[in-house]
Amino acid sequence: MLRAAVIGATGYAGAELVRILSGHPDVALSVITSRQHAGIPYDAIYPALKGFVNLDCADSDPAAAAKKSDVVFLALPHKASMAMVPDLLNAGLRVVDLSADFRFSSRDAYESHYQVHTCAHLMDMAVYGLCEIYGDRVAAADLIGNPGCYPTSVLLPLLPLVKEKMVDPTTVIADCKSGVSGAGREATATTHFCNVNESFKAYKVGGHRHTPEIEENISRCAGRPVRITFVPHLVPMTRGMESTVYVTMSPGADESQIQGCLESHYRSKPFIRLLPSGRSPDTLHVKGTNFCDIGWAVDPGSGRLILMSAIDNLVKGAAGQAVQNMNLMFGLDETAGLYGVPFPL
Amino acid sequence: MLRAAVIGATGYAGAELVRILSGHPDVALSVITSRQHAGIPYDAIYPALKGFVNLDCADSDPAAAAKKSDVVFLALPHKASMAMVPDLLNAGLRVVDLSADFRFSSRDAYESHYQVHTCAHLMDMAVYGLCEIYGDRVAAADLIGNPGCYPTSVLLPLLPLVKEKMVDPTTVIADCKSGVSGAGREATATTHFCNVNESFKAYKVGGHRHTPEIEENISRCAGRPVRITFVPHLVPMTRGMESTVYVTMSPGADESQIQGCLESHYRSKPFIRLLPSGRSPDTLHVKGTNFCDIGWAVDPGSGRLILMSAIDNLVKGAAGQAVQNMNLMFGLDETAGLYGVPFPL
Amino acid sequence: MLRAAVIGATGYAGAELVRILSGHPDVALSVITSRQHAGIPYDAIYPALKGFVNLDCADSDPAAAAKKSDVVFLALPHKASMAMVPDLLNAGLRVVDLSADFRFSSRDAYESHYQVHTCAHLMDMAVYGLCEIYGDRVAAADLIGNPGCYPTSVLLPLLPLVKEKMVDPTTVIADCKSGVSGAGREATATTHFCNVNESFKAYKVGGHRHTPEIEENISRCAGRPVRITFVPHLVPMTRGMESTVYVTMSPGADESQIQGCLESHYRSKPFIRLLPSGRSPDTLHVKGTNFCDIGWAVDPGSGRLILMSAIDNLVKGAAGQAVQNMNLMFGLDETAGLYGVPFPL
Amino acid sequence: MLRAAVIGATGYAGAELVRILSGHPDVALSVITSRQHAGIPYDAIYPALKGFVNLDCADSDPAAAAKKSDVVFLALPHKASMAMVPDLLNAGLRVVDLSADFRFSSRDAYESHYQVHTCAHLMDMAVYGLCEIYGDRVAAADLIGNPGCYPTSVLLPLLPLVKEKMVDPTTVIADCKSGVSGAGREATATTHFCNVNESFKAYKVGGHRHTPEIEENISRCAGRPVRITFVPHLVPMTRGMESTVYVTMSPGADESQIQGCLESHYRSKPFIRLLPSGRSPDTLHVKGTNFCDIGWAVDPGSGRLILMSAIDNLVKGAAGQAVQNMNLMFGLDETAGLYGVPFPL
Repeated sequence: MLRAAVIGATGYAGAELVRILSGHPDVALSVITSRQHAGIPYDAIYPALKGFVNLDCADSDPAAAAKKSDVVFLALPHKASMAMVPDLLNAGLRVVDLSADFRFSSRDAYESHYQVHTCAHLMDMAVYGLCEIYGDRVAAADLIGNPGCYPTSVLLPLLPLVKEKMVDPTTVIADCKSGVSGAGREATATTHFCNVNESFKAYKVGGHRHTPEIEENISRCAGRPVRITFVPHLVPMTRGMESTVYVTMSPGADESQIQGCLESHYRSKPFIRLLPSGRSPDTLHVKGTNFCDIGWAVDPGSGRLILMSAIDNLVKGAAGQAVQNMNLMFGLDETAGLYGVPFPL
Repeated sequence: MLRAAVIGATGYAGAELVRILSGHPDVALSVITSRQHAGIPYDAIYPALKGFVNLDCADSDPAAAAKKSDVVFLALPHKASMAMVPDLLNAGLRVVDLSADFRFSSRDAYESHYQVHTCAHLMDMAVYGLCEIYGDRVAAADLIGNPGCYPTSVLLPLLPLVKEKMVDPTTVIADCKSGVSGAGREATATTHFCNVNESFKAYKVGGHRHTPEIEENISRCAGRPVRITFVPHLVPMTRGMESTVYVTMSPGADESQIQGCLESHYRSKPFIRLLPSGRSPDTLHVKGTNFCDIGWAVDPGSGRLILMSAIDNLVKGAAGQAVQNMNLMFGLDETAGLYGVPFPL
Repeated sequence: MLRAAVIGATGYAGAELVRILSGHPDVALSVITSRQHAGIPYDAIYPALKGFVNLDCADSDPAAAAKKSDVVFLALPHKASMAMVPDLLNAGLRVVDLSADFRFSSRDAYESHYQVHTCAHLMDMAVYGLCEIYGDRVAAADLIGNPGCYPTSVLLPLLPLVKEKMVDPTTVIADCKSGVSGAGREATATTHFCNVNESFKAYKVGGHRHTPEIEENISRCAGRPVRITFVPHLVPMTRGMESTVYVTMSPGADESQIQGCLESHYRSKPFIRLLPSGRSPDTLHVKGTNFCDIGWAVDPGSGRLILMSAIDNLVKGAAGQAVQNMNLMFGLDETAGLYGVPFPL
Repeated sequence: MLRAAVIGATGYAGAELVRILSGHPDVALSVITSRQHAGIPYDAIYPALKGFVNLDCADSDPAAAAKKSDVVFLALPHKASMAMVPDLLNAGLRVVDLSADFRFSSRDAYESHYQVHTCAHLMDMAVYGLCEIYGDRVAAADLIGNPGCYPTSVLLPLLPLVKEKMVDPTTVIADCKSGVSGAGREATATTHFCNVNESFKAYKVGGHRHTPEIEENISRCAGRPVRITFVPHLVPMTRGMESTVYVTMSPGADESQIQGCLESHYRSKPFIRLLPSGRSPDTLHVKGTNFCDIGWAVDPGSGRLILMSAIDNLVKGAAGQAVQNMNLMFGLDETAGLYGVPFPL
C-alpha cells in the first residue's frame, strides 16, 4: 500500500483528495494536515465522511508527513507549496502539487502573474500533470504541477487539434463557466448563497491567472507563442465546469478530420468521453467523476469550430487528476480509485 | 455472482438501482427493462453512466427476466408490481418490490389508500424491508415490500423508542421535507424548475399515502392502533429528505434513557449514524449514501422530544435500502455495494 | 412627504427598507447609515439599485439622522438599537426598531435570551408591531418593536384561533423553514453556497431566541403562560419562510368554526390572503411581497389542526411590516408603498 | 386609459405582460386569453397575483379582444401570431407581437428557420422593436416584432459599435446563457428540476433560430451581410440572461473610443446602465427589471473586445420590452409601468 499525505486537507480540493484516497484500493491515507483545524477530527469538519476518515487534522509539518508517506499531495495556496517541495523531494518522496507553483515552464510567466519563485531550479524537473497529453512524462516524474481547473477544461479538447495543426491557435476564445466550489471553502461575498443564487456573471475579465497557464501549453503544442482570450463565469451550482471554446479551423480541415483527430488521440484514454458531433456535454453527467466529456460542432454560418468540455472542477479539475497523476507515477492502473459508478442524477 | 434484474429501470429509483448494482461486487446486472424506452441504450437516457452500463432497455417481460436472474427488483408504479410478483416467485426468484403493493399487513389499509389488491394471498409472506428493524425477517424472506422514503425517515428514529415505551405514540407529529427527485422523473408542473426554485410548500396535507404505512408500523411496535399526523413538504433540491418528528415522552423517560435506547438499538447498524444530543442531521451529509443520520433533542420549554433524520430519498429511501434488503436475503455483507466513500460536499 | 432614515441600511433588512421607502409615494429617504460602508455610494453595495438610490452611506450618528427625519428605522443588531432609541424619541421622532430590543413586555424574557436591557423603562411604551393583531395600538405608538420573521409567520395564523379559544395553546408545535437571507448578509459557513445547496437541516433546535417572542404573544392572547415547541430549518433558497403549525383543537371546535374565525379576523386585512381548506401556501407566491398567505386543514387521522403560512422573510418578516407599521403610525394608507404587483414567477 | 389585451396570457411572457400591465398607470387590462385555460380565473394559474388580477382567461378570439382594446400583445407560438395580425390591424389596433413572425425584414431568412410566412405583405410595415436602436421607427409603428431575448442581449452592446465601425462585425462570437424560464412554462425534460439543478450545458449549438435574427440586425447596421457564431447555454436559475460577446476591434479603435461610443449612444436611454471598463454585469442586479446592464473590457493579451450584457429574459428580453414599445407607440413616458425599484437581492 502506498502511504499518502494530504497537506491542506480541509479546503475543497483537499477534501476531495481525502475522499478519493480513502476509497483507493492501493493507498493508505497516512497524514492529513490543516493549519486552521489542527487537532480536530476530520469528520467534525466534513460530517459526511463520518465512519470513513478517522484521522485528526495534523499541523502542517512536512518533515513529519514525509516520515510516514511515499507520496504527498499539496493542496495549499500558491507560494505555500514551493516552500515545502524541496524537503519533500530530498526525503525521497514524490509530490503532486495542486497549486500553480510548478505548473509553468517559464519563470517569467509564473512571476508576472503570481510572485517571485523561490524554487525556480525545480521548475524544470516538474511535469505539468495533464495526464492525457503528457502521460509519458508524468510516469517518470517526481514532482507534478497539477493543472488548474480552467486549463484542464480548455486544453483537453483543444491540444490534439493544435498539435495536428487543424486549428489556428491564435484565434482561440475560451468562454468558461464554473460552479461555486471553485471559489473555495472560505466564506466570502462571492460564495454567499444570496449573491450566487439567480446570479450569472463573468469575473476577472481579461485578468484571470489561468490565462498564462493555458497559453503556455497551447504555445508549447503550437511551437510558437500564442495569446488567447479567456473569460471565466460563475454558475449557481456547487460543482462543475463547462468550457465553450471557439477556434478557426485551418484551411482544408473538415469535420471528419476534426473527429478523426479527437478520436485517435482519445480512443484509449479512460477519462475522456467523446460525444458525437453536435451533442453538448453537461456538467451534471460528470458530477463526482474524473471524466472530461468533450463535444464539438462546426458552426454552419461562420465555419468556426466550437469545442465544449464538461468536468467536475474538484475532480478532473483538481483532486481526481492529482490522483490520476499519482497512479501514473507509481505504475498503478490509471483508473484506480477513480472509477466509481457515476450518479445518474 | 448474483444475477439481478431491474424492472422499471429508467425511473429515478430504477436508475439508482442500476447505479448501485453496477458497482456491487457480488452482482451482475442481467436485465434492465423499460416499457417506455425499450430498445434504447441505457446510457442514452442517463449519459452519466456511459461506459458503466452497456445494456439496452428490454421490454418489461417478467418471464424473460426470470430466466436470466436470481433476484428481481420491481421499480414500478403501484399495481403494476403485484401483477408480476406471483410468476416471479413461482419461478423461484426472490423479489424486492419498491412499490407500495407489499408494504402492508392490512389489506384494508392498503386498499383504502391504493386500490383493490389482486395478490392479497402474498401479503402475509412479504416482509416489510426496514432492515434495521426487521432485519431477521428480511434475511428469511422471498418477497420484500421495500419501505417508502417518508416512512423510512420517520420510522427509523422513532420505532426503537416506541418499542421501549419511551414515548407516547399517539402524539407523533412528523413534519417531513423531500427533494424534488421524490416526485419522479416525469416532467410535470410539480417538477418544473421555475415552480420549485425559491419555493417551499407543504403538499397533500392530511392525505399522503405514506401515512397508513407509517401508522401500521408504529401500531405494530406499540401493540395497539395509532394514528399520527404527517405533513410532507417539497424542498428546492434534487436529493434528500429530512424529517422532524415531535413526540411526547413517557412519564419518567429522560434524556439519558432516550440516548441509551437509540444507542443500544443502532450501535451495530452500519447505516445509522447517531448524532450527539442537540445536533441536527443535514441532507447534504448523506447525499448519495445509504445512511440515515439521526439527531434528537428534548425541547426545554415544552419537554417534548424532537427527533430528526436525514436520508437520501433515492438511496436509503428507495434503491439503497432495496439492495441492503437483497444483501440480507442472500447472506451477503449488509454493506456490499453500498459503502462508497461519501462526497464531502 | 415624511422624511425617513434607515440606520443600518446595508444589511438585508436595511436594504429592503431602502427599496421599499425609495418607492413609497409619501416618503423621502433622508439618511441611510452604515458603520461598515460609511462614505460609500449605496449602489456600489447594491448595484441593482443604481439609478434609484443616489445617497451615500452615512456614519451611524443618530443625532444627525434625527435632524433630517420624522421617522427612523433601526435595522441594527440587538443591543445597538436600545442605545439609540431614547435620544431619537426625545428628539420627537417615531421609531420602528427591527431588532428584538423592544419586542418584549417582559424584561425577564428579554434578558434571559438576549442581554441586560439598558432601556427597560421604554419597554412599556413600545408596541409589538404585528399590524394585523395590534393595529390599533400601533396607530398610537411612538416606538414599535417590529416582530421577528418566525414569530410573524407563526402568530398570524394562530393568534385569532387562540383568542377565540378554538385551539389549545399548550399543544402548539411550530415547524418553520427559512430561506438563507434570514441568516443575514455576513459571509459565514452557514451562508456559503456549497453548504446550503442540496442541504436541508434544522438548526438551534430547542434554543432559538424567537421562541420566547412567540410564547409571550400566545400567552397574552391566551391569558395564561404558555410554552410551545419551535424548530427552525434552513431551506436552499434566498427568500421565503414557511411555517407549519400543529395544534389540538378545542373540544367542540370544527372546521367551519376554524374557517369562520380566520375569515372574520382577516377579511379586511389587505396583507392576509386566506386559502381554502386543504390548500398549501407557497413561498414562491409571496416572494417580494408583504403578504402572509395562510392555509389550514384538519388532519383526518389525528384530528389535529394544521396551520400553514408563507411570507417573504425580508418583507412581511422584516422591512415590509416595518413600513406597514410606519403607515399606520402616520395615518397613511396601510398599503402605501407595499402593494406592487407581485411577480408571477 | 389605454385598453390592452394579452393573447396567450398564461405562458411566462404572457404572465409578465399581465404583471406589468396590471401595474401600468396608463393602461387597463381589457382581455387576457388562454386556449388551454379558458374560463379559469387567472389567479388560479398564478396564485401570486391573487388580488391584483381579477380576470378569467378568455378563449383566443381576436375579434372579441379587438372590440375591447386599443393595443394587443400577442404572446403566442410562432405561426399563431401571423394568423391574427391582419384582422387586428384592420380593426385599427396596434399590435406588439412577441413571436418571431414579424421580426424579420427578409422573408427568406424567416422561412428558412421557421415556416412559410402567410402574411409576408405585412413584414415591411412591421418594425423590429429594439427600442434603444430603432426607437424613432417604433414610435410611428402599428405593428412591432418584439425582439427575442438572445438578440436583445447580444445586439444592445454590439450595435452602436458596429454602426460606428469600431469593430469588425464578421468576427462576432456570442456566448449566451439563459435561465430556465426561457424554455417556457411547459413541463419537459429540459425544465425538470433534476435535469437543471447542478447542470450547465450548451444547447442547439450552431442551430438556434435566434442566429438569423441577430445576423439580420448586425448586417443592417454594418451595411453588408454578416454571419456570426452564437451558442446558447442553460443556467440553473429561473430568470436572467448573460451574453459575453467577443469581437475584434477595428484598426485604430481604442478603449476610449469604445467607451465614448457606448456612452454617447446610451447616455439618454433610461433602460441601459453602462458599467465602467472591466466590470461585469450580473443577472441578479437586473432581475425583475427592464434594464440591460452592459460591461466591456479590452482583453490585454489578444486585444479583442469583450462585451457583456445582463438582462431579465422575461422583462427586457420579452414582456418589458414589449411594454416599452407600447409606451413609445402611444407617446407615453418610455418608462411608464417599467420603473419599479429593483430588489437589492
